[in-house]
Amino acid sequence: MNIEIIVPGKLSSHLQNVFDFYLKKLKRFANLSVTFTKLGGDVNRESKQVILRREKDEILNKVKNRRFILIDLHGKQMDSISFSKFVENEMLSGELLFVIGGPLGIDDELRKKASLKISLSKMTFTHEFTLVILLEQLFRAFKIINNEKYHY
Amino acid sequence: MNIEIIVPGKLSSHLQNVFDFYLKKLKRFANLSVTFTKLGGDVNRESKQVILRREKDEILNKVKNRRFILIDLHGKQMDSISFSKFVENEMLSGELLFVIGGPLGIDDELRKKASLKISLSKMTFTHEFTLVILLEQLFRAFKIINNEKYHY
Repeated sequence: MNIEIIVPGKLSSHLQNVFDFYLKKLKRFANLSVTFTKLGGDVNRESKQVILRREKDEILNKVKNRRFILIDLHGKQMDSISFSKFVENEMLSGELLFVIGGPLGIDDELRKKASLKISLSKMTFTHEFTLVILLEQLFRAFKIINNEKYHY
Repeated sequence: MNIEIIVPGKLSSHLQNVFDFYLKKLKRFANLSVTFTKLGGDVNRESKQVILRREKDEILNKVKNRRFILIDLHGKQMDSISFSKFVENEMLSGELLFVIGGPLGIDDELRKKASLKISLSKMTFTHEFTLVILLEQLFRAFKIINNEKYHY
């Protein structure tokens, strides 16, 4: 199964270890790649709207015409079991594409184009922290699908 | 303000950097300490119930008679703004004590003794990942309370 995650920006150093850890763990279950796109600009010099639009263009440029799942604070909440069932179903199509918004949030057009919006929590996290949470839940999903223990 | 977080086990190395990062960031806002308690045993050799009970005893031994907030999957969901308001209110008492369950979950007695149960997500995370999410949300809460930007 191919899983791709598209997210603007780059990873801060304090998240590198946990990012690498889950990427390595997930290799056993999926062909996973993370694509970082360009940030839209400097919020001190340009409007939020302009920045979000540019980030949206960068993201859609990578999405092309594929269907994608948007990680969105206001999306559908799932528990880990439901999320694993969702991933299991998607495995049939062989491809799963996630998009995470940038530091300032999500452009409306991106929200409209998403085939599904999933919320990881009612709480707001930085976009890069969201990336790590998504990796953890994907790993957990595959452990559940494969009926393996995951306590530690 | 004093904030203490009690959690069974110890931190895995892949989470050390992000843990250190938020602990350092939070120093500016609070006197925060994390107390790791002993794990209750080996799930391959003993029942889950026995292990949870031992972990509960270790935790309550540290809690003493203080009121505490339990981080619980089935607790009350808050968004980051509500959580920051909650933290702000608690600042009046000068002390905030959180308890996170162990790898196998939470003993019922602990659930009963908690003055409040907060859920960070409908999704299940490892107890140590939960610790890092809580630190991130505490940092965000203080940024909100102090009216500071937090995009990065």
